[in-house]
Amino acid sequence: MCRRKIIAVIGAGRASAAGLAMAEEVGRYIAERGAVLLCGGLGGVMEAASRGCATAGGEVIGILPGASAVTANPHVTLPIVTNMGHARNVIIAHTAAVLIAIEGEFGTLSEIAIALKLKKTVIQLNSRPRIESALQAATAAQAVAMAFVAFKEDPL
Amino acid sequence: MCRRKIIAVIGAGRASAAGLAMAEEVGRYIAERGAVLLCGGLGGVMEAASRGCATAGGEVIGILPGASAVTANPHVTLPIVTNMGHARNVIIAHTAAVLIAIEGEFGTLSEIAIALKLKKTVIQLNSRPRIESALQAATAAQAVAMAFVAFKEDPL
Amino acid sequence: MCRRKIIAVIGAGRASAAGLAMAEEVGRYIAERGAVLLCGGLGGVMEAASRGCATAGGEVIGILPGASAVTANPHVTLPIVTNMGHARNVIIAHTAAVLIAIEGEFGTLSEIAIALKLKKTVIQLNSRPRIESALQAATAAQAVAMAFVAFKEDPL
Amino acid sequence: MCRRKIIAVIGAGRASAAGLAMAEEVGRYIAERGAVLLCGGLGGVMEAASRGCATAGGEVIGILPGASAVTANPHVTLPIVTNMGHARNVIIAHTAAVLIAIEGEFGTLSEIAIALKLKKTVIQLNSRPRIESALQAATAAQAVAMAFVAFKEDPL
Repeated sequence: MCRRKIIAVIGAGRASAAGLAMAEEVGRYIAERGAVLLCGGLGGVMEAASRGCATAGGEVIGILPGASAVTANPHVTLPIVTNMGHARNVIIAHTAAVLIAIEGEFGTLSEIAIALKLKKTVIQLNSRPRIESALQAATAAQAVAMAFVAFKEDPL
Repeated sequence: MCRRKIIAVIGAGRASAAGLAMAEEVGRYIAERGAVLLCGGLGGVMEAASRGCATAGGEVIGILPGASAVTANPHVTLPIVTNMGHARNVIIAHTAAVLIAIEGEFGTLSEIAIALKLKKTVIQLNSRPRIESALQAATAAQAVAMAFVAFKEDPL
Repeated sequence: MCRRKIIAVIGAGRASAAGLAMAEEVGRYIAERGAVLLCGGLGGVMEAASRGCATAGGEVIGILPGASAVTANPHVTLPIVTNMGHARNVIIAHTAAVLIAIEGEFGTLSEIAIALKLKKTVIQLNSRPRIESALQAATAAQAVAMAFVAFKEDPL
Repeated sequence: MCRRKIIAVIGAGRASAAGLAMAEEVGRYIAERGAVLLCGGLGGVMEAASRGCATAGGEVIGILPGASAVTANPHVTLPIVTNMGHARNVIIAHTAAVLIAIEGEFGTLSEIAIALKLKKTVIQLNSRPRIESALQAATAAQAVAMAFVAFKEDPL
């Protein structure tokens, strides 16, 4: 059994410079600790996290909303093409044991809500509104550390 | 062209007695004004709204998460069987021009967020947390009236 | 319990004149016998069947692949907007107890195969290749008659 | 850009001993040539191909129909949890540029049809009925060789 640890990073296609920097850092830590990054495969937070992970030699799964892999950001190593629009968010929530939300708007809020309904661990990093059942992290390093703690508590 | 007006009622499988009463009333008004009720097809708020609509002679579409129509509540006249779990919420948000949210928890919050992302009109009726971009209704009658105003503003 | 009988008509966006005429006839018979037509909501066989059904006063559900109801043919009374591309075919197969396939190509073949896997009754009307587990009808009237026999044998 | 080559192996949960041996061989060749195996993640042909690929050190993506990664066969390294039943077949067809079909029944036929509709290369290995637009391979080695030729002709 060689099941890989999969951590999702969710967030909007547009983010602040600080949000993008945190996303890239989160991606790098995920790779350095040997996990796989799962994301929506597009731009903004998704692309920054992908860059951080791929640059550190990690595998990046992009669950794409459209009908072709060409829409994936260039750091996605494994584009999964769903052609299912926002319904792909539900696949991300089902697949990851832990999700780190960075900034984001309605799409991210929707994904947080689905993940919590599925009893997944959700870690918010500068993500508004603060959701009571989610964990709050102050830094990228802390968010990834919390993610690995969640894996230990609930090994898949 | 004989396109029917479709109004979604969303809310949890468990609701307060007041919430269920409001849902049934909303369903009845939808039928009386000639629109079709769209919902998730299961129990709680969904079933109460379905009962109100079907009892008043209206058509009730249930977008079911499971693999069989037998899970639909008895008032669903048109069970749509998706076998797609929570992803069926995205279909509800795409299909309805207007969604009325009654009480509800994470599943409902997720659906509100997706609907707002798709620029649909969302009307909250005793639904928490209050979402800024959603409209707030105080009564079932007001919620349905607001829904029909939204149709006039944005006829599909 | 006021569950409606739902019969799907599947087939390609392009069809022969004979195929379109049969589809329209099938749609009309479905409406005249009080059932609801379910289809993919677009053109060709889907539109002809929708026209036949709606013209005879029947309800027409279109399970649409795209993100908006505007792509539905004008005879669809209840557009269900999935934004899920070909995955919407699986919803059609799950929802209908009986599917009538008229002509068609790979998309139709895919839908026949899924429906048979789900143990639904499939009736082919000028549809190639002939699939052994499907029933073969020679005329529109015969196809619809076979569909109602299937309902009696396996009432949902 | 570090996009990985993804080859799907499709086939039924039950297969002949010869079919399982071929599937395992196909999986091994995919890994040895540096590509990633994509499959439905369950038993039979899927499990045999997964074993061959993982044993040779390759990455195995399983696009699962259910709601949990625990249903994946033990050789899946990256379980993608869709909770979408047969609709997950459409994701497999969209994601892989090339699909190798080994034996199989209606589910496999459905997937071949969708893949051909999406203009993907489909290679049949002891898979019935023979589909005209698919390529026919006689051995596992030949099937994988044909898959890599298809990549050269149509690099994603």
